[in-house]
Amino acid sequence: MNSYILEAVGFIRSTVKGREDAPRQGPEGAPDAWLEIELRFAEALLGMEVGHELIVITWLHEARRDVLKGHPRSDERRPLTGVFYTRSPARPNPLGLHPVTVRAIECTRLKVGPIEAFDGTPVVDIKSASTRADG
Amino acid sequence: MNSYILEAVGFIRSTVKGREDAPRQGPEGAPDAWLEIELRFAEALLGMEVGHELIVITWLHEARRDVLKGHPRSDERRPLTGVFYTRSPARPNPLGLHPVTVRAIECTRLKVGPIEAFDGTPVVDIKSASTRADG
Repeated sequence: MNSYILEAVGFIRSTVKGREDAPRQGPEGAPDAWLEIELRFAEALLGMEVGHELIVITWLHEARRDVLKGHPRSDERRPLTGVFYTRSPARPNPLGLHPVTVRAIECTRLKVGPIEAFDGTPVVDIKSASTRADG
Repeated sequence: MNSYILEAVGFIRSTVKGREDAPRQGPEGAPDAWLEIELRFAEALLGMEVGHELIVITWLHEARRDVLKGHPRSDERRPLTGVFYTRSPARPNPLGLHPVTVRAIECTRLKVGPIEAFDGTPVVDIKSASTRADG
């Protein structure tokens, strides 16, 4: 079997505790949140500055992994669509992509936003949003 | 330990066989490639059409996972930078993000491009690039 082990590099700390708090229409109106990065990954933040634009990749740990198709936004008037052509959280590998701006930095905690992710969501990667930062 | 199991949903089939074939400056000049999706995930492609813009997430299986900082583009004149503020493939969880356009569809194979990924790279997720496709 072709499988790979992802490790959490940190966690989201947000006022969004669950579905009832989450904006339904994407990131519009989503709050800022803190990314708490594990101390052993602290060096991976070297050079980080307020104002930088990042892409945060999360593991949507509450999402179902056995769903391959659905009605976009659960609207049954919309045609059944494969999850690889939606942004539904339910998918075989429930990865979330979040473009954010760095608002504040406190040691290994980054305040970023706007971000639509539940409190406690694992963070698995962070990248520069700029292709000019290619490593 | 907080870890999660990713499964390959498919693989990249590309003329880019290794580093010597890869464009060094990001996706400019990168070729098209085929995504071969595993048959058991075929339904997740429902509704896919030529011309759609996607974000393909790969597992960069040849990248080092023990690197936390480096000189961007291996240029020693550039300051040491944490991998969370670069797009270097070497990082704790070596996920690759590839914005692409669908060029052709043949059953469970998608031709997409331009994409800078080595032949044989596992694909772990595919999403619409449009937030209007929110599930």
